Amino acid sequence: MALRAGEHSQEAANGLKEKVLTLDSMNPCVRRVEYAVRGPIVQRALELEQELRQGVKKPFTEVIRANIGDAQAMGQIPITFPRQVLALCVHPDLLNSPDFPEDAKRKAERILQACGGHSLGAYSISAGVQMIREDVARYIERRDGGIPADPNNIFLSTGASDAIVTVLKLLVTGEGRTRTGVLIPIPQYPLYSAALAEFNAVQVDYYLDEERAWSLDVAELRRALGQARDHCRPRALCVINPGNPTGQVQTRECIEDVIRFAFEERLFLLADEVYQDNVYAKGSQFHSFKKVLMEMGPPYAARQELASFHSISKGYLGECGFRGGYVEVVNMDAAVKQQMQKLRSVRLCPPTPGQVLLDVAVSPPAPSDPSFAQFQAERQAVLAELAAKAKLTEQVFNEAPGIRCNPVQGAMYSFPRVQLPPRAVQRAQELGLAPDMFFCLRLLEETGICVVPGSGFGQREGTYHFRMTILPPMEKLRPLLEKLSQFHAKFTREYS
Amino acid sequence: MALRAGEHSQEAANGLKEKVLTLDSMNPCVRRVEYAVRGPIVQRALELEQELRQGVKKPFTEVIRANIGDAQAMGQIPITFPRQVLALCVHPDLLNSPDFPEDAKRKAERILQACGGHSLGAYSISAGVQMIREDVARYIERRDGGIPADPNNIFLSTGASDAIVTVLKLLVTGEGRTRTGVLIPIPQYPLYSAALAEFNAVQVDYYLDEERAWSLDVAELRRALGQARDHCRPRALCVINPGNPTGQVQTRECIEDVIRFAFEERLFLLADEVYQDNVYAKGSQFHSFKKVLMEMGPPYAARQELASFHSISKGYLGECGFRGGYVEVVNMDAAVKQQMQKLRSVRLCPPTPGQVLLDVAVSPPAPSDPSFAQFQAERQAVLAELAAKAKLTEQVFNEAPGIRCNPVQGAMYSFPRVQLPPRAVQRAQELGLAPDMFFCLRLLEETGICVVPGSGFGQREGTYHFRMTILPPMEKLRPLLEKLSQFHAKFTREYS
Repeated sequence: MALRAGEHSQEAANGLKEKVLTLDSMNPCVRRVEYAVRGPIVQRALELEQELRQGVKKPFTEVIRANIGDAQAMGQIPITFPRQVLALCVHPDLLNSPDFPEDAKRKAERILQACGGHSLGAYSISAGVQMIREDVARYIERRDGGIPADPNNIFLSTGASDAIVTVLKLLVTGEGRTRTGVLIPIPQYPLYSAALAEFNAVQVDYYLDEERAWSLDVAELRRALGQARDHCRPRALCVINPGNPTGQVQTRECIEDVIRFAFEERLFLLADEVYQDNVYAKGSQFHSFKKVLMEMGPPYAARQELASFHSISKGYLGECGFRGGYVEVVNMDAAVKQQMQKLRSVRLCPPTPGQVLLDVAVSPPAPSDPSFAQFQAERQAVLAELAAKAKLTEQVFNEAPGIRCNPVQGAMYSFPRVQLPPRAVQRAQELGLAPDMFFCLRLLEETGICVVPGSGFGQREGTYHFRMTILPPMEKLRPLLEKLSQFHAKFTREYS
Repeated sequence: MALRAGEHSQEAANGLKEKVLTLDSMNPCVRRVEYAVRGPIVQRALELEQELRQGVKKPFTEVIRANIGDAQAMGQIPITFPRQVLALCVHPDLLNSPDFPEDAKRKAERILQACGGHSLGAYSISAGVQMIREDVARYIERRDGGIPADPNNIFLSTGASDAIVTVLKLLVTGEGRTRTGVLIPIPQYPLYSAALAEFNAVQVDYYLDEERAWSLDVAELRRALGQARDHCRPRALCVINPGNPTGQVQTRECIEDVIRFAFEERLFLLADEVYQDNVYAKGSQFHSFKKVLMEMGPPYAARQELASFHSISKGYLGECGFRGGYVEVVNMDAAVKQQMQKLRSVRLCPPTPGQVLLDVAVSPPAPSDPSFAQFQAERQAVLAELAAKAKLTEQVFNEAPGIRCNPVQGAMYSFPRVQLPPRAVQRAQELGLAPDMFFCLRLLEETGICVVPGSGFGQREGTYHFRMTILPPMEKLRPLLEKLSQFHAKFTREYS
């Protein structure tokens, strides 16, 4: 707001008429949008990096960006095979090169055959290259123990975010007390709150149970729904499994309960399953909503509407920059599906390189293929290291007084709860900051560690958290966790 | 609607409760969205292709998709250098290969240095890789004769569409008679009508003058604005130059008039300049709105708000599938720019491969570089062939009675006007089709030529047109144009 005031006074000073588009005259829904994962704390982190480059003295030598699930930015090496296939598709002259394995060439040739003009430079159909949609369908069938998947229910997208926003957009309608309400978990990944604010829909919070490892309780869903019905029309329920930022992996029983609840209450289900390959904890296992729904049989299997989202940005690939993903819609009204297709077509098509990497992800080398051994080894190495980092994170944080961290069963984040002394809370309020934002900013300034305050994801009143990725390289992660714990102790002393 | 009715009766028949998300209960704004470029005619084209593959006999052997500006789908060969650079960035092992020129390697290394983790697999900042934004700024400065461009005013995007939709989204506000109105040309590229429908903003039509080669007349802008002010609040003016679908290239004088008009009437200017490299006609020259605005000096230069859009999908690259583009904002309120940045950050970043190709497009090989000669030769060959096709299209169509085609001065399309006999119009109305849709569907069924009816772009009441790309390969284009002209003659006889 300071900036805005400044603008106005300057306008006045120059005696110029105001601009057409100002903070006051712009889309008010856009103004309400918030996205903490790339919010003020990250802006400050960028400034600090610049200051370091300029030789400014700091109590640290590098900024560690543990704010976003960006594996390759943290040093993860790309898996070789998908990059080989993509390079061949981008520059087909390489198909004659002896430096590429036969299976990579076969795959690239197959993909190019399916592209317009046999080139990645042509638009694909808006739902994605048909052959890739078919490969995704077969992947889902393997994942779900043979339950059929229809390629025509699969829409490739520009990362999962794009598909999530599209499905939410279809659901939004009404005004005042008839506005669409969408149930989202708290803590949530802020794409959901941002999209609902942009669409002027009603965000309906249901709280995950921190005391029970962030589990989802249907009684809490019922409470949230009941209260919401007084002021909006709840039509959809979003579930993130494995959880972001909370890292829990839902049990099959829990998923069945959620499906029954959604069916009884007539809620469209959105299942954010982009971390389906990121499950680490003993005894934890990923169950797709689609599989559970189908195995529940009638009336659920044939009726309950579901959209399930996946991405190439997470898992073991971590190919965030290529923006690839898909949504599978289940039991969606045929006419609505046509409308979705139409809406997607206005934006022409998802980027073809992301489609290529997605194809490799859903149809990787088979045991008989020359690249199989290396692909498997690289894949396992990534997932094994992530599992070790998840364990280490939980362990080190729980050794620190005043920090409590639930097991990181899956996904790529810890979301520890931190005790902040009353005087720190008071100081934050004086500064007009959320207490955990104040803590995270101080942490960044003094240690160079960039994490996102829990207030950016939502949390129970009076509790404070931060989200930290488990992605920093092993050799950096332990010192990082210890440094953070020590800072918390120091911060606590300072304000006690 | 047939489908919808079908759905319902089926619901009833099965005695099942209706779905949560139906045509009746979905977002009504999305329902109003239309996008002819990939509309029903293209669906039918896809079906016909399938039938041909299945060996069904047709009066033609292939479907020619002249509906969309997709150069590589029509056989245009990708320019070598950008693909080499991208392949090197995707698979950096190739940096050791002797098969790539030094300048491609240098460029790839420079780009990777600027990426998180030195990998395309990392997210870039939401506005795009900073170094690429700087290269874009230098490109704009060269293009505009040294007028400065600020990298911080440049936002890379997922094709130009993404950026256009973002800027429109910022402008949309109000309800009833205070709703934002946006002036768009008729005929228009239907992204604009689609986005305005989705955002529930008011589309304000201004007509291009077909009699004067689709020129833009400020008197017509004034008429449209005056009428619009009765029922909405016009806040923005969109101009497409070179024109899509109309192919005109605006004179500098016209651009100055438009800028003066926008300034006086307090309209935010959106300049769709994605065809800035596609200018063919003798005496036609591309003038960027930014350059003209700055050269007009005060009060315009320092005050008039402008967003200019560009893309890697058109020009000589034609790399549609990679979804790369950018917007430069000029005189945008600083606080609004922050809001735009925030909004963009929710979707994380534009696809990195598209950013790479954009970087090559804005900083191509220099005369001293090993790849310069080949790059220039390939670039010139593409542009020269497009110019020849533009000329041929105009010429053949104007030889046909009942078809009149303005000169294709630029862009990639002809938008000929066709006379349709009254009985054909009547027949179309009986079928519930727009007369030119009826014509185009019959054309597709009998010749395999897929073009888009003028009704999908907007046209003066009682006039009929179609948009056809000039992209089919030279050897196919002449027979195609003649076939189309002959079909029109036959169609006219049939209904006379």
